[in-house]
Amino acid sequence: MRSVIGSAVTVDPAVVESYRRDQSKLTSAGSPLCVVRARSIDDVRATMQWAHARRIPVVTRGAGSGLAGGANAVDGCVILSLAGLDQIIHIDVASKLATVQAGVVNADLARAAAASGLWYPPDPGSRDFSTIGGNVATNAGGSCCVKYGVTADHVARIKAVLPDGRVIHTGSRTRKNVAGLDIGSLLVGSEGTLAVIVEVTVRLRRAPGAMSTVVASFPDCASAIDAVIECAAVADPCVMEVMDRTTIRAVESMTRMGLDVESGALLLIRCDGADFAADAERCAAVCRRTAGEVWSTDDAEEGEAMMAARRMALPALERSGGVLLDDVAVPVPQLPGMMQSIDRIAERYDIRIGTFGHAGDGNLHPTIMFDETDPSQVSRAGQAFEAIVERAVELGGTIAGEHGVGVLKRAHLRLMIGDAELDLQSRIRQAFDPYKILNPGKG
Amino acid sequence: MRSVIGSAVTVDPAVVESYRRDQSKLTSAGSPLCVVRARSIDDVRATMQWAHARRIPVVTRGAGSGLAGGANAVDGCVILSLAGLDQIIHIDVASKLATVQAGVVNADLARAAAASGLWYPPDPGSRDFSTIGGNVATNAGGSCCVKYGVTADHVARIKAVLPDGRVIHTGSRTRKNVAGLDIGSLLVGSEGTLAVIVEVTVRLRRAPGAMSTVVASFPDCASAIDAVIECAAVADPCVMEVMDRTTIRAVESMTRMGLDVESGALLLIRCDGADFAADAERCAAVCRRTAGEVWSTDDAEEGEAMMAARRMALPALERSGGVLLDDVAVPVPQLPGMMQSIDRIAERYDIRIGTFGHAGDGNLHPTIMFDETDPSQVSRAGQAFEAIVERAVELGGTIAGEHGVGVLKRAHLRLMIGDAELDLQSRIRQAFDPYKILNPGKG
Repeated sequence: MRSVIGSAVTVDPAVVESYRRDQSKLTSAGSPLCVVRARSIDDVRATMQWAHARRIPVVTRGAGSGLAGGANAVDGCVILSLAGLDQIIHIDVASKLATVQAGVVNADLARAAAASGLWYPPDPGSRDFSTIGGNVATNAGGSCCVKYGVTADHVARIKAVLPDGRVIHTGSRTRKNVAGLDIGSLLVGSEGTLAVIVEVTVRLRRAPGAMSTVVASFPDCASAIDAVIECAAVADPCVMEVMDRTTIRAVESMTRMGLDVESGALLLIRCDGADFAADAERCAAVCRRTAGEVWSTDDAEEGEAMMAARRMALPALERSGGVLLDDVAVPVPQLPGMMQSIDRIAERYDIRIGTFGHAGDGNLHPTIMFDETDPSQVSRAGQAFEAIVERAVELGGTIAGEHGVGVLKRAHLRLMIGDAELDLQSRIRQAFDPYKILNPGKG
Repeated sequence: MRSVIGSAVTVDPAVVESYRRDQSKLTSAGSPLCVVRARSIDDVRATMQWAHARRIPVVTRGAGSGLAGGANAVDGCVILSLAGLDQIIHIDVASKLATVQAGVVNADLARAAAASGLWYPPDPGSRDFSTIGGNVATNAGGSCCVKYGVTADHVARIKAVLPDGRVIHTGSRTRKNVAGLDIGSLLVGSEGTLAVIVEVTVRLRRAPGAMSTVVASFPDCASAIDAVIECAAVADPCVMEVMDRTTIRAVESMTRMGLDVESGALLLIRCDGADFAADAERCAAVCRRTAGEVWSTDDAEEGEAMMAARRMALPALERSGGVLLDDVAVPVPQLPGMMQSIDRIAERYDIRIGTFGHAGDGNLHPTIMFDETDPSQVSRAGQAFEAIVERAVELGGTIAGEHGVGVLKRAHLRLMIGDAELDLQSRIRQAFDPYKILNPGKG
């Protein structure tokens, strides 16, 4: 292999070990053969040709920040890291498009867009370190998706390397394009199973203007979610986040921000656009009907300080030890039922669960806290995790909102996808990858 | 076949003949075996099972309003009409979703959404008669796509029948869903080649509020398109339409609206949202820099009257005889070059071409006028059509913006899609339809 792609390959056990897993918990990972740190698309092509000829599995990886084990090694695989493909190739201001290599970090793209007076909306929690390639491969979400859509809604073109090393281009620089099958949309969210995404052209928007922020504490989750639905009927908020009591208490205990630890749920709502102040006032008025306390501000710095509570949710819950971060979504009207079920599941398995998430699009991150050294707790955490995923599907939702399926939720796919769909999925994978070398056993 | 699906089948030659073609010009159509006018999903399943067992081709059809021959018969096929599947199944106000059968007409869905205070944005010119199934199968566009996106951006779930009669469900009712491959996005724009789309759940938005309309006449196309780019940088228009001089003159000659027949290009811009009046004033100010005349109005009725000029474009051009309506898109900054090329092509082939279209997303409809009884003109019209499509690709655009590929542009696919992509496309079709019975030779 070295003769083909030279020093990009390493078999150094320490390096290989550091590339074995992503950030997921309770997922299995195999032993890789080697790691290729690609520096060019030619490196990717050469790696694929080499692996394809030998039927050797290839696991593609960006920042390794995934939460579902999608980038975990399988035994005897090549780990193909695209982190070195980090060039921002072009920002086309007139067409509002940016072309970047797969290894560019989301926040770096966002900064480059901002420098041109433009904006790349998708804002996964990992945006400071996750890569665009990984964001596209998992169809990453975030907080502003409720108004601006997910990663899929921002992808115009993809350049990808097929398992046999051929390069394909999908999509168009134009907003409208109906020439041929939309292969690009199929690559989005395919978790490295169809092709290696090496370059992406994304759509940008005009830079957003000022925002207002509203924070309201509710007696319970049901009244908070009623307010979410009402706000979406009278305004067009760009952020609607929820935190349950367990999360509020964990954040307050860590930050001493002065959150109401007696409230049942906290909503954080932001409005942007020309009507931001009036929209926020409409949302605040909705909240006042049932909320205990409602704060709001048009000040950017104060708004950011309020949003800090939400950003602290996961770190605060993690202070109690191991956490298993789940990711389900249900239709918004089902959120109260889902949050109630999560509380019951916590009781049933005698384990603590703090829930927060993107209420505006029904996407929750129930966070199961457990002692990783206690086998009984580990087992109960796993059972609670399963029960949450099952309940989301029962409520008409999905097993995975924005973190992907990876290995973590492979078994759950059957809960929501039937035989005909699974069969079709496997035939489509076969069409791209006849020898099943790309990320086998994932997605 | 009658024993399986009864009276839904007809072989009456007059009926069969009326289902042979869509609205496209200069496209070939074969002779169907029969027509099935499905009244239920079971009729669709029975038809597919019958045809699959006998390897008989099936051409699915909604309103038959397509412009690329996508619904034209192939010899010995079953024409499967879904126009009878016209039930609006459910409008879910809290989740802003509508579930409809494939044969529901776009405007009927829009009206039902409006009755619930909601809005279905995609507005193809055919919306008064084209069906949602056809809109999804061709990924239909329209005028407001520049701000609100195309049909693909509004599809949440699809229920479809595979060639062997099995039913699949794609997508999710939730805004975020990353469980499994995005098969639904692949069905959008697949022109009846992968599965028969029988039911669609679309995303709705809050009803739009008031709008302002700006109309400006420019000395030439280049200055008009410069204004389009500037307007998109300072405002967020929901409509940006252009008409060239030939179109302006045809419309004026038909309507006597008082359009400036000496101007080189007309722009029609609409702004909505909270800031509609200020946004429109910003656009008007941009136009004033180079436009001859600029009119604007906040009045809904006056605005509609102004937009009538654009809606009259095709009927006005059609008054001169036969027209071949093209559909290309280029990056917006390339529009002046594209429009200049179209004029040169008209000169080269000594034929009249009027061009209008959705300038905001680079989507043009050059309309070639010719005498259908004059073989030389028919031939020159065809050559001009080819030349336009080739030029769009040279300028980094697409052979088909919103009308589909059908049979009309099958040969042009190679201009923009390489061997690896075509090979992949054919393998994907194979994965859905191993016997190639669904709309063979199309898309």
